[in-house]
Amino acid sequence: MYNIDKLFEAVGAKGHVCVGLDTAAEYVPPLERKRAASDAEAVFAFNKALVDATFDAAACYKVQIAYYEEMGLEGLACYAKTLKYIREKGGLVIADIKRGDIADTALRYAKAHFAGGFEADFVTLSPYMGMDSIEPWLTYAENSGKGAFVLMRTSNKGMRDFEYLETFPDKKRLYCAVGDKLATLAASHCGKYGYGAFGAVVGCTERDEAAEIRKNYSSLFFLIPGYGAQGGAADDAALLLREGNGGVVNASRSILKAWETELKKSGGDEAVATNTFAAEAARKATIEMRDAILAAIK
Amino acid sequence: MYNIDKLFEAVGAKGHVCVGLDTAAEYVPPLERKRAASDAEAVFAFNKALVDATFDAAACYKVQIAYYEEMGLEGLACYAKTLKYIREKGGLVIADIKRGDIADTALRYAKAHFAGGFEADFVTLSPYMGMDSIEPWLTYAENSGKGAFVLMRTSNKGMRDFEYLETFPDKKRLYCAVGDKLATLAASHCGKYGYGAFGAVVGCTERDEAAEIRKNYSSLFFLIPGYGAQGGAADDAALLLREGNGGVVNASRSILKAWETELKKSGGDEAVATNTFAAEAARKATIEMRDAILAAIK
Repeated sequence: MYNIDKLFEAVGAKGHVCVGLDTAAEYVPPLERKRAASDAEAVFAFNKALVDATFDAAACYKVQIAYYEEMGLEGLACYAKTLKYIREKGGLVIADIKRGDIADTALRYAKAHFAGGFEADFVTLSPYMGMDSIEPWLTYAENSGKGAFVLMRTSNKGMRDFEYLETFPDKKRLYCAVGDKLATLAASHCGKYGYGAFGAVVGCTERDEAAEIRKNYSSLFFLIPGYGAQGGAADDAALLLREGNGGVVNASRSILKAWETELKKSGGDEAVATNTFAAEAARKATIEMRDAILAAIK
Repeated sequence: MYNIDKLFEAVGAKGHVCVGLDTAAEYVPPLERKRAASDAEAVFAFNKALVDATFDAAACYKVQIAYYEEMGLEGLACYAKTLKYIREKGGLVIADIKRGDIADTALRYAKAHFAGGFEADFVTLSPYMGMDSIEPWLTYAENSGKGAFVLMRTSNKGMRDFEYLETFPDKKRLYCAVGDKLATLAASHCGKYGYGAFGAVVGCTERDEAAEIRKNYSSLFFLIPGYGAQGGAADDAALLLREGNGGVVNASRSILKAWETELKKSGGDEAVATNTFAAEAARKATIEMRDAILAAIK
């Protein structure tokens, strides 16, 4: 069984939210940050509280490694601990590492992120160097069910620089050329619900091509960024789903910083906010997002 | 002064070789690996010996982070120590990390790799997501001279999947679209020898377009992979240089494993090979490569 099948089932049971643990130390309530032995410890305690509070309302978690690298080795220890905590609890976790390198190197990376100290259930990959930078990771799909989401059409403004370039002579966009290769891969590594072991990253910030992308790449499970802080709404995300499934929608800051929003609403004092308070606010934000997406697909 | 200027001067003084420290533990002589407290310690001792032995014959070093991630946190400590060792010795080091992510995330990465515990002089970046994934790194070029090499035309077979796609209507290849954007960036961040602070990765495995690429992108300093084990020769690499400078040519395995090649030639016993022996073989391989490239550009 591929992890993509597990993710399909998690979406069916818990909805479409992927909680993005892009946790900068400054997102932790100041009181808790001060109390902790280090920023990395503060981030781990915060992550743990949020995972516990959102576990029944989130399909999966995505951990953006950049926020941990920023804190050096201690940050990466916190990254590893966060992945381990989620996996031991029975959750699914996506390592947002966007790797893309030649085959020999890809195999080293795959060992690190699919079997080593940083083991995750899924990774994100960048396709620029071509399919021989993606295929080495497939061994782990075959042997232990691992999955990946390959960048296809992202959610940032700069996506127009290259992803939107039209190719000669058929005017097909680069992101579609990537999608086509991924669809071929999905055909040879297809899970029991009709989705390939490796899916694609497709942002929900652009409505225009959403329905077409969903129709043309029906075998690709989507990791959907761009919700909330980046501008995407529930009905934008819904266009990228298929028969109520087929994608998870990531939100990071709107969940991580929900405690700040709650405080602003109630006029509460930031200085006394706790991780418990932050976790409750995160849970509320996750449930609201889950329900908004569920309502949008009806 | 940009680091790219320092690299230009290093090439003038020491030749074009970039020693790639893609050091897997199995590349270390078995005797030394057994003696070491851990694989990570073995790799660091090996790297140190090779850096000392090649220092006057190499323009710079490139450290491929995948080989260290494979060893987990201890491997990343070894990665950090290797960068620190080279920089404290006065050498230039490229962190081969191929990052590419949205602006907020790019800033976190930039802090980690240009200022934090993993500080390097240059990084490699992947352009798929567009220029807003590259530009955040420029702050560090402006403030502390840091440099980057952005993937343009790589040296693997898979490069034909996307990098070679022709765009509509002018049939310009994707890698040229990337090169054009980098040339614009080079114009606004130009060093004193006429090269932009951020250069490009251009492999030497394909001769055909080499002269044209060099002519069209005269303001881009090239990091040139594909030499040796991947099939490129000195005169292939020479086509990507300009007036005797403008690029560094990376070799990893042919230098790291030169000790094995030496042993095979002499019929020596692998079991007694030391880091001193490996370092001497690496030095010899580096000098041979340096001289072959110098001869090819004459």
